[in-house]
Amino acid sequence: MAARIDFQTEPARYRHWKLSFDGEVAELIMDVDENAGLFEGYQLKLNSYDLGVDIELADAVQRLRFEHPEVKVVVLRSGKERVFCAGANIRMLAGSSHTHKVNFCKFTNETRNAMEDASRASGQKYICAVRGTAAGGGYELALATDHILLADDGSSTVALPELPLLAVLPGTGGLTRVTDKRKVRRDLADAFCTIEEGVKGARAVKWRLVDQAVPNSRFQQAVKDAAKTLAAQSDRQSGAKGIALTRIARKIDADTVTYSSVKVDIERDTRRATLTIQGPGAPPPAAAQAMVEEGAQFWPLRLARELDDAILHLRLNEPEIGVLIFKSQGEPALALAYDAFLEANKGHWLAREVLHYWKRTLKRVDVTSRSLVALIEPGSCFAGTLAELAFACDRSFMLIGGLPGDNRPPAALMLSALNFGAYPMSNDLTRLATRFLGEPASIDKAKAEAGKPLEAEDCERLGLVTSAFDHIDWEDEVRIFLEERASFSADGLTGMEANLRFAGPETMETKIFGRLTAWQNWIFQRPNAAGAEGALKRYGTGVKANFNPERV
Amino acid sequence: MAARIDFQTEPARYRHWKLSFDGEVAELIMDVDENAGLFEGYQLKLNSYDLGVDIELADAVQRLRFEHPEVKVVVLRSGKERVFCAGANIRMLAGSSHTHKVNFCKFTNETRNAMEDASRASGQKYICAVRGTAAGGGYELALATDHILLADDGSSTVALPELPLLAVLPGTGGLTRVTDKRKVRRDLADAFCTIEEGVKGARAVKWRLVDQAVPNSRFQQAVKDAAKTLAAQSDRQSGAKGIALTRIARKIDADTVTYSSVKVDIERDTRRATLTIQGPGAPPPAAAQAMVEEGAQFWPLRLARELDDAILHLRLNEPEIGVLIFKSQGEPALALAYDAFLEANKGHWLAREVLHYWKRTLKRVDVTSRSLVALIEPGSCFAGTLAELAFACDRSFMLIGGLPGDNRPPAALMLSALNFGAYPMSNDLTRLATRFLGEPASIDKAKAEAGKPLEAEDCERLGLVTSAFDHIDWEDEVRIFLEERASFSADGLTGMEANLRFAGPETMETKIFGRLTAWQNWIFQRPNAAGAEGALKRYGTGVKANFNPERV
Repeated sequence: MAARIDFQTEPARYRHWKLSFDGEVAELIMDVDENAGLFEGYQLKLNSYDLGVDIELADAVQRLRFEHPEVKVVVLRSGKERVFCAGANIRMLAGSSHTHKVNFCKFTNETRNAMEDASRASGQKYICAVRGTAAGGGYELALATDHILLADDGSSTVALPELPLLAVLPGTGGLTRVTDKRKVRRDLADAFCTIEEGVKGARAVKWRLVDQAVPNSRFQQAVKDAAKTLAAQSDRQSGAKGIALTRIARKIDADTVTYSSVKVDIERDTRRATLTIQGPGAPPPAAAQAMVEEGAQFWPLRLARELDDAILHLRLNEPEIGVLIFKSQGEPALALAYDAFLEANKGHWLAREVLHYWKRTLKRVDVTSRSLVALIEPGSCFAGTLAELAFACDRSFMLIGGLPGDNRPPAALMLSALNFGAYPMSNDLTRLATRFLGEPASIDKAKAEAGKPLEAEDCERLGLVTSAFDHIDWEDEVRIFLEERASFSADGLTGMEANLRFAGPETMETKIFGRLTAWQNWIFQRPNAAGAEGALKRYGTGVKANFNPERV
Repeated sequence: MAARIDFQTEPARYRHWKLSFDGEVAELIMDVDENAGLFEGYQLKLNSYDLGVDIELADAVQRLRFEHPEVKVVVLRSGKERVFCAGANIRMLAGSSHTHKVNFCKFTNETRNAMEDASRASGQKYICAVRGTAAGGGYELALATDHILLADDGSSTVALPELPLLAVLPGTGGLTRVTDKRKVRRDLADAFCTIEEGVKGARAVKWRLVDQAVPNSRFQQAVKDAAKTLAAQSDRQSGAKGIALTRIARKIDADTVTYSSVKVDIERDTRRATLTIQGPGAPPPAAAQAMVEEGAQFWPLRLARELDDAILHLRLNEPEIGVLIFKSQGEPALALAYDAFLEANKGHWLAREVLHYWKRTLKRVDVTSRSLVALIEPGSCFAGTLAELAFACDRSFMLIGGLPGDNRPPAALMLSALNFGAYPMSNDLTRLATRFLGEPASIDKAKAEAGKPLEAEDCERLGLVTSAFDHIDWEDEVRIFLEERASFSADGLTGMEANLRFAGPETMETKIFGRLTAWQNWIFQRPNAAGAEGALKRYGTGVKANFNPERV
């Protein structure tokens, strides 16, 4: 394993992807450098990928939205001759810890969801132009796009060979997107997932696996035509000029990560990390143009990027940290002023991107398998968008009044319009609607208090925090909660939190993170896949896996 | 392990439950005989349960519907002084194989779903009267009822202590019903699931965990009042007289199970079982009263009971049988006549019960973790209700014409009105609607053909079967499919099938079987729960479990 996995990159540093631009159409070209894997011990042959490849893809998808508002269609294609993408690298999977496998899948799922979000929320459509084999994760990448063209050349195929080859599932949304997005008939889906060599041409179209199968002679033109059609459907503003996602300021020490607006403090012996969020230091700009000029320094964008990076860092590099404690500092009125600014300018392309990025970052928090708790104390800034962090937590505790010797005014939580629709969870409900599934009237009661400072007892009465304690109980209650949490089984907590966080309706996203991920986690633990004689271990050795036939 | 687990029982043989009747209210009393566990090695103390206890419960729930149409409300209570129910027996769980644990949970889930189905579909409401502790599976049993009364006596509690005590999840729908049925606020649900000793009295009401907390002095009266209220809401016909669910005729040999209308043939070396379903031998009765007189011998009821038993037998007693092959024999026109009879009499209490029982039996097939395939050959009887079995399968193959030397007419599949609404899957869509999620017009096309014999090429054109083969290819194609299936990892198939079978919307049931079950299966494999130093193994030893803190 590498010393530390870094989620920050930029096009100039890409090893595996190329971006090119032609007016409102961009090309995103996968051309994996087989010798540039994130870890030792494998080569990324045939455009197979590891987390490092996906970190670059996630970066490209993100930059396309912020740096290229003019791009209405992204054409995803391979830079290799005979292969589109062979999927996740199998030697990498076979050599990875269970923890890394699960977190790798989670991140790749988030990246594919981000592509779909670009299309749905932001009018930036994706086309997948498949020549050669799109197998496993390669086809799953295609599934995340709006339109799949397959070369009808007698050899190009799409395939999900995980079950027959590796005894695992297509773990990056493949099964769910086949049934629920492309709505492939279930028996055909079953057949498809057992055909190691995949499906090609007209049959792939007939089974709804791809949208078009096109002979090589007409392939380029068909891609262009599809791009034109999708571009015409885009609601993206023509003529907008992007902002640069400059490098984020970050300092990583042994037990701290320091950003401009986020500080992570790790306590290793108690396995906790405290994320302290800094509210804005000044009012929002007066007009949208000033926001564009601030660019990546625009506070909500800067904070979202830092928070996103911190969460990913903790997930992948700090697996033994079991509890994330969210704190905040700042002036709630200023945070609310930013919310009002975003709300007022939500028709502007950049404000729209910032809002959707916050949505995705908060979803990233939701599916992080650590216990999440918010501590709301005097001087805190859980206002509007930042209050969503408290609502994302498994528990939230709020101090009544102050602690002895602290003369600051009591903590107050504040709500803004953005708490009531801007940030749906992956179940498509807001966090407050999920919270109040059993008492919808409480949503209206909370709405009526938007803009007002809500002290601890108000918040408790309104159901906005789990518990409010005065200074006599505060330290003990918080300590007991944290100690208790650390005493529980990490796996039990993961399963419990994954179930309790997402009440109500299900979507393709919740199915992917809830159902598919859970089955894959289970299968990754089973000897038939991961055991010494299992398919993952024996892949490529010429020796067949030895399966226990027992069904459970 | 016992030699063979038998799912057939009757009240006179119950060791753990008592049924008593008072007009439209029945009492279902849990009074577990601690020395009558299904296996050696544990005592069923404190009304804890094992599969044997749940088999009796499932039988009682079933008999209440068929034998007691007059019962509008069932009051579930404990026959012990200080405890309602301590949940699944922990020593039983710790000593069970992974396979048994998973199948035990699946069956108990189906039983709780059957209680909810009785309420929703058949107007037979359930009340849970909790005095003493309802912990883990004990509270999950309460959660399956319509109304929970908790004695407000300072000691009676409801609890889900699985996570803190055992490092596993409440695996019988608890987490899902807490968030989605009772709509407990997610942070309170989180708190509740970590409080080993549970929650009592007013707090349990406030958190929505129970409906009423009532002092002992008024408890009996409150239960009576609640029963009266619920009975008034029931649409169950007053004055109907039940039928007796007589013992099913069954002969179990080494490799066969023979019922009156189902035959199971097991091929151990290839790990296949063939279930041959026999269609009706005569037309349906002329009128509803004749159906009542036939009672348990009424063909659709008799067949459903036999099929249900066969599926459960294969699940629990034949874990190495990986593929279930469905065949049928009989006169399709007679099967359709039964469907027409049921449809015409669906307002009659018994026809309604039979229809809902078929719905539940087909759902049992849907969630059976074996590969399911239908072979539709000359002489078969996949008509109407029986065609649902083909639609429940992962694949269906149909012979075009006949095999050499067989002069019977070609196979024909037939549809009836019951294929279009009577038998929703647990996603609340019919099997045809799930099948045609991507092409809803195909549902109407199929509907237009209802009542007509549809030969193989018609069925293929209409999308009703996976593939049609003529006699030249038939044997090879079927053989290749079966051999291929046997070569795949059992776990991979389980995960794949669980994902592909349930496209489209989600319900509490699909969440329980898809999401919750998958997480629980995963956790049951993790060392923190099931390892030598895990919580399940160490429970009751006085030695604390040793947890790997790594989060995945």
